[in-house]
Amino acid sequence: MITFVTSNEGKFMEISHEMRQHGIEIRWEKVEYDEIQGNDTHEISLRSCNDIMGKVTGDFFLEDTGLYCTPLNGFPGPYAKYAQHTIGNRGLLRLLEGSERSAYFLTVISLRHGNRVLQFDGKVNGTISENEKGSNGFGFDPVFIPEGQDRTLAEMNLQEKNAFSHRGIAVRKLIRYLQESNLK
Amino acid sequence: MITFVTSNEGKFMEISHEMRQHGIEIRWEKVEYDEIQGNDTHEISLRSCNDIMGKVTGDFFLEDTGLYCTPLNGFPGPYAKYAQHTIGNRGLLRLLEGSERSAYFLTVISLRHGNRVLQFDGKVNGTISENEKGSNGFGFDPVFIPEGQDRTLAEMNLQEKNAFSHRGIAVRKLIRYLQESNLK
Repeated sequence: MITFVTSNEGKFMEISHEMRQHGIEIRWEKVEYDEIQGNDTHEISLRSCNDIMGKVTGDFFLEDTGLYCTPLNGFPGPYAKYAQHTIGNRGLLRLLEGSERSAYFLTVISLRHGNRVLQFDGKVNGTISENEKGSNGFGFDPVFIPEGQDRTLAEMNLQEKNAFSHRGIAVRKLIRYLQESNLK
Repeated sequence: MITFVTSNEGKFMEISHEMRQHGIEIRWEKVEYDEIQGNDTHEISLRSCNDIMGKVTGDFFLEDTGLYCTPLNGFPGPYAKYAQHTIGNRGLLRLLEGSERSAYFLTVISLRHGNRVLQFDGKVNGTISENEKGSNGFGFDPVFIPEGQDRTLAEMNLQEKNAFSHRGIAVRKLIRYLQESNLK
């Protein structure tokens, strides 16, 4: 069984739900690990993956997500979690008052499979809503409306969110890889 | 001669000026190094110092500074540089509209001296101004007024800023140590 290393219960819920739909059970392990500062989510994730090797036995994966707001030069980017815990949704809404509101979410999953590291990503374009809406999900979900939708991610249930989200896209790439390589 | 590792010219100017006043010349080296994500500036600096060992010959020091705004739960904290490059001074002012404005700057200098690492810090309480003022310095200097002053750090010249600033306090602790240990 493969291990998902995360301290975020919301991420575990979403990813384990999607994988279970495809017949894959995963183990949850909370391991403290360092993340480097940087603008490149792929690089941050890769470095974290290298850091965790030796702390976790067997194959594992981890997940990094950033929110990039165009009118804010990409803020909060890879520091979405820190921004969420300090200025929160209201701070982000305030920063965007009166400006255009395009943004995207980017998820990168890094899988350690034997001696290799593979990455799977998912990107969703969208807009930051005018107000917080919905109570599902976590993080900036209440203020992000995926392109082509009229609800925030927090107004969607788990299944709907996975269908539209950056994380859902990335995890389905991971699932496809696991199925093809028969690694469950 | 001791080496100051930084990619920030403003930091080099301020610190080398203060050290020269005390008869200490330093060398400037731009070395790329990783910073971990975290809330503790001392820890971030220590880890960076360990990362740089092996890349720099001889004794060296580096400097980390965070800006912690009380009404924003410490934001932008150790991510001051990232926040400056994305939302900038205007973003910070917007986040603080209508709220109280207390904040502090914290600088940590980590010195590698032989096989040891020593840390010197400087903290300055103050307030975030209502508007940007002044054009000296860098970063959030135009919006930070040290306690007991009526001007922002960017309205002060180099000498004045060093007298009042977090960085000035930290570097004078470093200077005292270097003088006492005869390490110049």
